[in-house]
Amino acid sequence: MEYRKIKDEDKDEGAAGDDIESLRNKSLTVPRGNVATIGGGSNDRSKWKCKTIVTFALTILTSSQAILIVWSKRADKYEYSVTTANFLVETLKCLLSLAALARIWKNEGVTVDNRLSTTLDEVSVYPIPAALYLVKNLLQYYIFAYVDAPGYQILKNLNIISTGVLYQMILKRKLSEIQWAAFILLCAGCTTAQLNPSSDHVLQTPYQGWIMAIVMALLSGFAGVYTEAIIKKRPSRNINVQNFWLYVFGMVFNAGAILIQDFDAVMNKGFFHGYSLITVLMILNHALSGIAVSMVMKYADNIVKVYATSVAMLLTAVVSVFLFGFHLSLAFFLGSTVVSVSVYLHSIGKLTR
Amino acid sequence: MEYRKIKDEDKDEGAAGDDIESLRNKSLTVPRGNVATIGGGSNDRSKWKCKTIVTFALTILTSSQAILIVWSKRADKYEYSVTTANFLVETLKCLLSLAALARIWKNEGVTVDNRLSTTLDEVSVYPIPAALYLVKNLLQYYIFAYVDAPGYQILKNLNIISTGVLYQMILKRKLSEIQWAAFILLCAGCTTAQLNPSSDHVLQTPYQGWIMAIVMALLSGFAGVYTEAIIKKRPSRNINVQNFWLYVFGMVFNAGAILIQDFDAVMNKGFFHGYSLITVLMILNHALSGIAVSMVMKYADNIVKVYATSVAMLLTAVVSVFLFGFHLSLAFFLGSTVVSVSVYLHSIGKLTR
Repeated sequence: MEYRKIKDEDKDEGAAGDDIESLRNKSLTVPRGNVATIGGGSNDRSKWKCKTIVTFALTILTSSQAILIVWSKRADKYEYSVTTANFLVETLKCLLSLAALARIWKNEGVTVDNRLSTTLDEVSVYPIPAALYLVKNLLQYYIFAYVDAPGYQILKNLNIISTGVLYQMILKRKLSEIQWAAFILLCAGCTTAQLNPSSDHVLQTPYQGWIMAIVMALLSGFAGVYTEAIIKKRPSRNINVQNFWLYVFGMVFNAGAILIQDFDAVMNKGFFHGYSLITVLMILNHALSGIAVSMVMKYADNIVKVYATSVAMLLTAVVSVFLFGFHLSLAFFLGSTVVSVSVYLHSIGKLTR
Repeated sequence: MEYRKIKDEDKDEGAAGDDIESLRNKSLTVPRGNVATIGGGSNDRSKWKCKTIVTFALTILTSSQAILIVWSKRADKYEYSVTTANFLVETLKCLLSLAALARIWKNEGVTVDNRLSTTLDEVSVYPIPAALYLVKNLLQYYIFAYVDAPGYQILKNLNIISTGVLYQMILKRKLSEIQWAAFILLCAGCTTAQLNPSSDHVLQTPYQGWIMAIVMALLSGFAGVYTEAIIKKRPSRNINVQNFWLYVFGMVFNAGAILIQDFDAVMNKGFFHGYSLITVLMILNHALSGIAVSMVMKYADNIVKVYATSVAMLLTAVVSVFLFGFHLSLAFFLGSTVVSVSVYLHSIGKLTR
C-alpha cells in the first residue's frame, strides 16, 4: 500500500515526469513550510492522480477484505476475539503512520505540518469519530433483536443516503441534482444487487428495527463526514500526523471494548486465542483499508468513499464466482447495471453543476 | 377517451381559453388546408397539453388493461378465442376512427387532410406494422419452448432498449447521454420491479431463447418506431384517417390469424364462444389503448410511449394491492425507485442536451 504524501508541484505544472515517485523526489527541493499536501494548491493533474490511486486502493482493499471474511467463514475460523483484532488493527495503523512519519522526518526534517506534537484545540476533536463508531457498534448488538443478519446487510445501504445528506449539510458542499439522482440510484442498485429470495423479510422489520437502522446509518454517516471535516480543516497538516491521532483514540476506545466485553476470555484463553493466518491477513487488510479511507478523506471525500466501497461490493461478488463458485443472480446483474449508471451520472453530474 | 384533433392556433398564441374544446371551436374559422394538427406549428402550450393528455390516457388504459387481465385470470374466464377478440379490437378501433371522422366532416367539411381516400404511395406503408406484429406474435408461440411465462415477462423488457436504439437510428432523433442513461435505468428498474424468487431461471435461457427474445424485441421496437414514422411523415394528415388505415390492415391480418389458428373452434363453437363481461371490457380497453398509442405517436413519440407503459406496470401493481390483496416485494420498491429516477432524468436530460 502506497500511502506516502505527494507534495506541492506549483513550480512544475504538467511536467512530463509527474508520477508519484518523481513528484516525491522533486519535492525534496521545495522549501520548508511549503512541504504541504496535495489538498491545497498542488496542480490539478497530480491531485486527480492521487485521488485515483487512493480510491483504487480503497476499492481493492475493501473488496479483498470481504473476500477474506467469506474465506474465514467457510474455513470456520471465527473463534478469535473480535475486540482484540480491532485493537490490533488500530495499533497497526498507528505504527504504520509513525513509520511513514519517521521516513518523512528523515528526508525533510520536522516541520510545523509534520510534527507529532499538537495543541489541545487540534487534538480535542479526534476522539469524536472513534466514539461515534463505538456507539454504532454497541447498537449493532441490539439491532439483531429485530433484524436478521441478511436483513441488516440490506438496511446498511441506508448509510449511502445518510452520508449524502450529512455530507451536504455539514461540509456545505452541494451535490448537483444529477449527483443526487445518482446517489439514490447507488443505494437502490447496491440493495438490488444484494437481493435474495428471503430479502422480503426486511419489509416486516418492526419500527424499533427501522429506527435503530436509521440511527446507525446517521451515526456511521456522521462519523465519516466528521472525520473528513477534521482532516480537511488543516489541509497543510501532514495526513500521517492526522491519522496517528485518529488511530491513538481508536486504540483507546478499542482497549475499553476489550475490558468491557472480552476481559474474561482474554484472561483465560490469552490475547491471541483462535488467531490463524486468515486472522492475521484480515487484520493487515483492515489496517491498510483504514489508512486508505483516511487518504480518501484527505484527497477526495466521503462521496468517493461510498462509491469505492459500493463498487468493491460488486467486485467481491464477481471475484467470489471464481474463488468460491458463487452464482450471480439476475438481481445482481440489474443492481450492477444501476450502480454503473450511477457512477457515470455522478461523473457527468460534476460537469453540469 | 378524448381523441379529437386539436387545430393550429398560430393566430391565437397563448390565448386565455386554450383548452381543447375552445381550441376546437375556434379552429372552425381556420381556412382549408390549415386545418392541420398539433404536430406542426401549433403553440407550445396546447402541444404540451395534448401530449400530457394522451400520455396520461395511455398510462391509465394500459394499467387498467393489466388489471382486467389479472381479473379475468382469477375469474377463470379465459376460454374465449384470443384471435377473435383481437379482430374485434381492430374492428372497434376502425369504427371509432370512422365515428370521429364523421363528426369532423360534419363540423368542418371534407378537406385534403381529413378525407378517407388515399394514394397507393400513402397507403402502401400501412400494412408493415401490422405484418411485423403478426410475425412477432407467431414467434411468441415458439419462444415458450425455451422460456417459461414469467421468464418471458422479464425478457420483454428488452423492448425498452430496442425501442431506444431503433428510435435513434430510424427517426434520427438523438437522445442525450442522460436520456440514454435514463433509458437503461428504465429497463433495469422495470425488470427489478418484476423480480420474484424464480426469476433467476431466466439466466439459464438457452441461446435460442435469447436470440428469439432479441429478435422479438427488435420486431416490436421496429413496428413501434415505423408506426411513428408513418404517422409523423404527414403531420397535417388527420390522425383518425391515419388510424383508420392502420386498423384496416390490422383487421385483415387478424382475420387471417382466425382462419389459420381458430377456424375450427369458431365454426364449431361460434365466434363469441366464452365471451363474458370481462371479455367485452377487455376488448373495449384494448381498443381505447390502441387509439391512445396512435395518439402518443402523433403528438409525442415512442420514448413517451415506453415511459407511459412502464409507469402503468408499476401503477398496476400498486392498484392490485388494494383490489386483489397482492403484496409488494422489496424488489418492487427498488425497481420503482429506479424507474422514478429514470423519469426524472429523462425530463432533465431534455433541458441539458
